[in-house]
Amino acid sequence: MIQKLAAEALGTLFLVATVVGSGIMAEALSGGNAGVALLANSIATGAILFVLITMFAPVSGAHFNPAVTFAFLMRREISLRIGSVFILVQMAAGVLGTVLVHAMFDQPLLQEAQTVRAGGAQWLSEVVATFALVLTILGTLRARPQAMPAAVALVIMAGYWYTASTSFANPAVTLARAFTDSFSGIAPVNVAPFIAAQIVGSLLAWLVADHIFKWELNSD
Amino acid sequence: MIQKLAAEALGTLFLVATVVGSGIMAEALSGGNAGVALLANSIATGAILFVLITMFAPVSGAHFNPAVTFAFLMRREISLRIGSVFILVQMAAGVLGTVLVHAMFDQPLLQEAQTVRAGGAQWLSEVVATFALVLTILGTLRARPQAMPAAVALVIMAGYWYTASTSFANPAVTLARAFTDSFSGIAPVNVAPFIAAQIVGSLLAWLVADHIFKWELNSD
Amino acid sequence: MIQKLAAEALGTLFLVATVVGSGIMAEALSGGNAGVALLANSIATGAILFVLITMFAPVSGAHFNPAVTFAFLMRREISLRIGSVFILVQMAAGVLGTVLVHAMFDQPLLQEAQTVRAGGAQWLSEVVATFALVLTILGTLRARPQAMPAAVALVIMAGYWYTASTSFANPAVTLARAFTDSFSGIAPVNVAPFIAAQIVGSLLAWLVADHIFKWELNSD
Amino acid sequence: MIQKLAAEALGTLFLVATVVGSGIMAEALSGGNAGVALLANSIATGAILFVLITMFAPVSGAHFNPAVTFAFLMRREISLRIGSVFILVQMAAGVLGTVLVHAMFDQPLLQEAQTVRAGGAQWLSEVVATFALVLTILGTLRARPQAMPAAVALVIMAGYWYTASTSFANPAVTLARAFTDSFSGIAPVNVAPFIAAQIVGSLLAWLVADHIFKWELNSD
Repeated sequence: MIQKLAAEALGTLFLVATVVGSGIMAEALSGGNAGVALLANSIATGAILFVLITMFAPVSGAHFNPAVTFAFLMRREISLRIGSVFILVQMAAGVLGTVLVHAMFDQPLLQEAQTVRAGGAQWLSEVVATFALVLTILGTLRARPQAMPAAVALVIMAGYWYTASTSFANPAVTLARAFTDSFSGIAPVNVAPFIAAQIVGSLLAWLVADHIFKWELNSD
Repeated sequence: MIQKLAAEALGTLFLVATVVGSGIMAEALSGGNAGVALLANSIATGAILFVLITMFAPVSGAHFNPAVTFAFLMRREISLRIGSVFILVQMAAGVLGTVLVHAMFDQPLLQEAQTVRAGGAQWLSEVVATFALVLTILGTLRARPQAMPAAVALVIMAGYWYTASTSFANPAVTLARAFTDSFSGIAPVNVAPFIAAQIVGSLLAWLVADHIFKWELNSD
Repeated sequence: MIQKLAAEALGTLFLVATVVGSGIMAEALSGGNAGVALLANSIATGAILFVLITMFAPVSGAHFNPAVTFAFLMRREISLRIGSVFILVQMAAGVLGTVLVHAMFDQPLLQEAQTVRAGGAQWLSEVVATFALVLTILGTLRARPQAMPAAVALVIMAGYWYTASTSFANPAVTLARAFTDSFSGIAPVNVAPFIAAQIVGSLLAWLVADHIFKWELNSD
Repeated sequence: MIQKLAAEALGTLFLVATVVGSGIMAEALSGGNAGVALLANSIATGAILFVLITMFAPVSGAHFNPAVTFAFLMRREISLRIGSVFILVQMAAGVLGTVLVHAMFDQPLLQEAQTVRAGGAQWLSEVVATFALVLTILGTLRARPQAMPAAVALVIMAGYWYTASTSFANPAVTLARAFTDSFSGIAPVNVAPFIAAQIVGSLLAWLVADHIFKWELNSD
């Protein structure tokens, strides 16, 4: 159990470190071209997701994301007790990831994000982004487990570009990004609605996956 | 059957959403550098194709494309009745994908594209792009099924750059792109010739594949 | 046999079409930023290489490259007769690839390249690039055949950036690039020394591979 | 044994050649946009890592990195004698890689880097980068050996962006980069602290991996 929690903690920490750190580096280097910055940000995030899921999936399942743990709770594939601990660990480790990045970039360890991310279009984007992420996990977990790390990495990489919110799709990452006043920040007041939208997206994916991938359950 | 149609619908919807949405985001961020915008557009499209094919191929075959369904009709691997329903669902879901993206980006839900895409060079490009796509599918489906999602993703990613039309290669996506007045739009009057060229490309690929990959059929 | 030749022809044609076409598209779009253009050029080339090798390796071995066929001739894994026909087909199909791209981009079908690519540093680059390519093929062919398409795609994608010549590494592609006056062109007078350097690189790779990967032959 | 050393030498040489060479090319082409340059630099490095590890892992284990060899020494999976020779060969081959690149780009073969890379934030970055690299290797080596080359390539590609030091994570590469006065250089006086930080990161990864991936040892 301690190994599972360590895997969730390290995974969420490095995921947040990459999202926030690559945002800082990319913005500093790209000379005001936000397209170049988001390319670097999205490629780095996709890359680390492949690494972390490949490495930690055999240990903890590699959730790194309360919205994912929530879907497994709905599917009764994880107990409420363990699921709750997972979510707490993810939330705490995510914030530590932001702190680690700030230390690496020689910045104040905890900052208050200023970037406003709010409104119906942004929230719809988070519903769609989280729906796509959770559907990808539930759709590949049994039928194509070896392709799952790449699929999750790429659904997030694409999500950076086709959603208006750049696809946070993760309550732990959303909370952690409230503590950085940089490229990837989100104002603290905007965190709760984002998380609510992510829960809705996860719920929808659970319902749809249960129907579309039903045949899988029979063949198990 | 309803599961197959849901897979085709979700797949085509998310494919169009990524093509159109990443075009909007990329154009907005790249400060007038269309090269950076097309890089983002092509990488996002390739990424989501890998995800959608990996996830839905075991359910519906993951066509998401009338030109692909057409090739399977010619090969008599799908009935005319099911193939027709597939094509209708793809067409409708593609347009819904455009609507969804516009909602996410807070824009009018249906727009009329202004971008003129016409002329012999463009049509030749669509013949070549669709030929390459369908040949890749028919060439990997049996001999290398595990590599098929990556191969399809990458043949389209390359197609964005080596064809003059940026490789639509898909009648459902072409129709859907007539409803957005953004980076990836195509004027409605230009849709029909594009689709005609795509059908020609699919036919050519079917003929060539039947010859080159003939040995496969023997070993099945 | 006709199937093998068709595979070599289609593969070399699409490889050249992607190298030349993505060069034209990238230069046109990237607003003078050659870094962005070469990113697109290298990513598109790597993408199509994965596709073509995945699809055609079971048919012809997927050489698409006289320097590769030459290495298999040295290893006596292909007869001189078949090897010679392969090389002729690759050379002819490469030039057709350039013609096809020019048709797609509405340009004169055959052009004379103006870009000077000469001098010891360039030739050394071609020796190194071809050495790396052929070593990668010989090193993965038996021990890791499933990873071979990705390895070849990525050794060329890297080669665009770490060699001063952008890693032609292919006599058929070199010849074909003499017929385009665009981003990827090479002046006709510079073709022969490039091809000579590529043959040297292939020879070196054959010698080194024969030693380093010797253990493989025993375990076959 | 000579084959193992040749594999380590060629691998480290080509790794350094790609890091340094793609830095020179990218800086020359990207018109002052360091974001574009680092994108090319990181993509080329990730690409060649996949190639070199895929090709040489069956021969030597594909360390190419004294910090990796050090971790295997701690795990007693390599003898002190062989490990020491590996490290010497990696160090020498890395410097040769820099020389080769300078020859390909027609520059003085050995240069003295001017770029200052020092301070606590940089050193912390190297601890984190090397920790992530070694943890990835130890975490995938047994449970997911086929995904290891991609995981190592991508953890370094991400590291370029989320660490403030651009993730050297390799004493042999660090030393070699002291001999180039270009994009990827590091002033000679800054080499020793970087290597010390890398050893610390490797040690931490060994300790953590030993705990988190303990279950693997049981199932072997």
